[in-house]
Amino acid sequence: ELNMNNTAASVKTPKEELKDFIDIFPILSNEIIRELPGMDMPPQTVKWVEKLLETNVMGGKMNRGLTVLHSLQLLVEGRQLTRSEIFQANVLGWCVEWLQSFFLVADDLMDSSITRRGQPCWYRQPNPISNNGTPIGTIAVNDSFILESCIYILIKKYFRNEQYYADILDLFHETSYQTELGQLLDLTTQPNRGDFSLFTLNTYRRIVKYKTAYYSFYLPVALAMLMCGINSTPAFETAKDILLPMGEYFQIQDDYLDCYGSPAVIGKIGRDIEENKCSWMICQAILNATPSQIETLKKHYGVDNPEDVQIVKKLFGEIDLKKIFKTYEEESYGLLVNKIKQVRIMPQEVFLKLLSKIYKRDL
Amino acid sequence: ELNMNNTAASVKTPKEELKDFIDIFPILSNEIIRELPGMDMPPQTVKWVEKLLETNVMGGKMNRGLTVLHSLQLLVEGRQLTRSEIFQANVLGWCVEWLQSFFLVADDLMDSSITRRGQPCWYRQPNPISNNGTPIGTIAVNDSFILESCIYILIKKYFRNEQYYADILDLFHETSYQTELGQLLDLTTQPNRGDFSLFTLNTYRRIVKYKTAYYSFYLPVALAMLMCGINSTPAFETAKDILLPMGEYFQIQDDYLDCYGSPAVIGKIGRDIEENKCSWMICQAILNATPSQIETLKKHYGVDNPEDVQIVKKLFGEIDLKKIFKTYEEESYGLLVNKIKQVRIMPQEVFLKLLSKIYKRDL
Ligand SMILES: [Mg+2]
Ligand SMILES: [Mg+2]
Ligand SMILES: [Mg+2]
Ligand SMILES: [Mg+2]
Ligand SMILES: [Mg+2]
Ligand SMILES: [Mg+2]
Repeated sequence: ELNMNNTAASVKTPKEELKDFIDIFPILSNEIIRELPGMDMPPQTVKWVEKLLETNVMGGKMNRGLTVLHSLQLLVEGRQLTRSEIFQANVLGWCVEWLQSFFLVADDLMDSSITRRGQPCWYRQPNPISNNGTPIGTIAVNDSFILESCIYILIKKYFRNEQYYADILDLFHETSYQTELGQLLDLTTQPNRGDFSLFTLNTYRRIVKYKTAYYSFYLPVALAMLMCGINSTPAFETAKDILLPMGEYFQIQDDYLDCYGSPAVIGKIGRDIEENKCSWMICQAILNATPSQIETLKKHYGVDNPEDVQIVKKLFGEIDLKKIFKTYEEESYGLLVNKIKQVRIMPQEVFLKLLSKIYKRDL
Repeated sequence: ELNMNNTAASVKTPKEELKDFIDIFPILSNEIIRELPGMDMPPQTVKWVEKLLETNVMGGKMNRGLTVLHSLQLLVEGRQLTRSEIFQANVLGWCVEWLQSFFLVADDLMDSSITRRGQPCWYRQPNPISNNGTPIGTIAVNDSFILESCIYILIKKYFRNEQYYADILDLFHETSYQTELGQLLDLTTQPNRGDFSLFTLNTYRRIVKYKTAYYSFYLPVALAMLMCGINSTPAFETAKDILLPMGEYFQIQDDYLDCYGSPAVIGKIGRDIEENKCSWMICQAILNATPSQIETLKKHYGVDNPEDVQIVKKLFGEIDLKKIFKTYEEESYGLLVNKIKQVRIMPQEVFLKLLSKIYKRDL
């Protein structure tokens, strides 16, 4: 079995691909954990980090993570990937998942969220070391840093000798910064409750491009491009030109589901209304409401109280945001397909595959 | 004036060196800020980031930052540094200051601290965008991420073409992770108030090695070593062997000053007693107290109430922690000097200079 890692892997079904992806998690998690005793970390600290990784990195839909491998497969056109390429692509995929967990742990704390992926948010879970039921609380901030650090441990371990090592690091750094700017926009676009002056579609689109689209859509595809040796700026610009609008479309779905999705399906309890968020829903409501409906929205939007939320949701119904969303979704899909059909610099399938994964998801 | 950046700079006094260092801050800050409008960030967001940098990166003692240049000067033995080398060393020095600001902004939130460098902690300052006096609060978490991201923007800008570029990135990543593990130890070593079982010198030394020594002492010297082309593992191990104990000594001073330093001098109000911290003071108090004094400590240590704090401080006086500290300081200084005198692999002056900066500081 010499050089088995360089032999072509057999073709896999989507289910097998997902299983292969999930099977890599314990290997990567163990890379982090097994170093800790040698660094003199006591058993309770090792257990803490283990629980941190299990609870926050695993359990998502893993679409972002699998996108690296899927994109790489379509980018190499025709030839089969080696086992070693598949493994490396999946390591980068897990790094995207790790990046997301870094952001989500902090985001839930900043948004005062209650649940995530069907369980209490990490900062609300009981501190595993203390015996008096106090929650993890703000220790979650440092935990989010640790999740971020794992990315660089894993990249160093599996990519230190690749000629594109520094490019991967630069890409993760830039994507992190873009996401942080998006979070800053998100957190400062609702300075005063009842002030709707910043709730415009322009502001909205800027927020979601930065807080979601770069890391969820551009990052995994760009990683695959780096892995297969692409280094032409126009190729990366083309990818951005399609993937950032696709990310916007995805976030609009997320905002819609925050209001109309079932918590059992989306794994979290929507709180955009309570948290006075500049969501697509409120921006569209403002655009389509009568002056008297706007007055009602101003009175009840952004109040953390079930009765106010009910009034807002009733108004959303009257304005028929469901219909406005369906129309938007069709339009947006059409525009994206048209854009993709014009791509010549790389295989269109990379983008079509991604679009097919999110079109009409979870509705 | 062709190639002026490659000519030797004239010898500077410490005051001129500090001024040169401080003068670089606006240049670096501007590197970050001027990119933002082109990224479509609105004026209020640009102002936010500007204020974030000014408030949190500037205003420290800048010892860590200046250490990169000082170490580099001593490492090249004899020859004078070029202007360009001085500038690059100072950029890395500022990156160390930026890393510290990343950690301090989050640390103050996690420790519920009140002031930092003589002003309210960032998370307690009023949100500059909202007009109703609400504090920045947990948005400070994302702000700390942004401070971290700046490090990598600056390193990329000034070091992308150096052959040691990836080594600098690896070093910042590793140091960040070590500091985060130290913070985790720090935050989980006082699970239950009145439980002194974890307050031992062994635990204490592990915490401070990770949370302080790596980033404050090892990092700036190791950066200078990378800049002058050192890549032998034994040299970096020797540096660690001296700089980590030096960092421990520094943190013990910090713990002492938390109790006995003047807030006007140290720029912050000590809260280690209120926050139930595993500080050197409580570890030494436990080692030197009578059983009845320990009972009193268990009752009053870790309570956020001025009367309890007074009782603890009175006991620290009875145990004479001031004297125990002075004795420790002399001993520790002697041990460090002896260690340094045995170094052959690199100039001893690198370490002696650093030690001279902290011995009997601010007392
Ligand atoms: Mg959220
Ligand atoms: Mg959020
Ligand atoms: Mg949402
Ligand atoms: Mg603190
Ligand atoms: Mg702390
Ligand atoms: Mg302290």
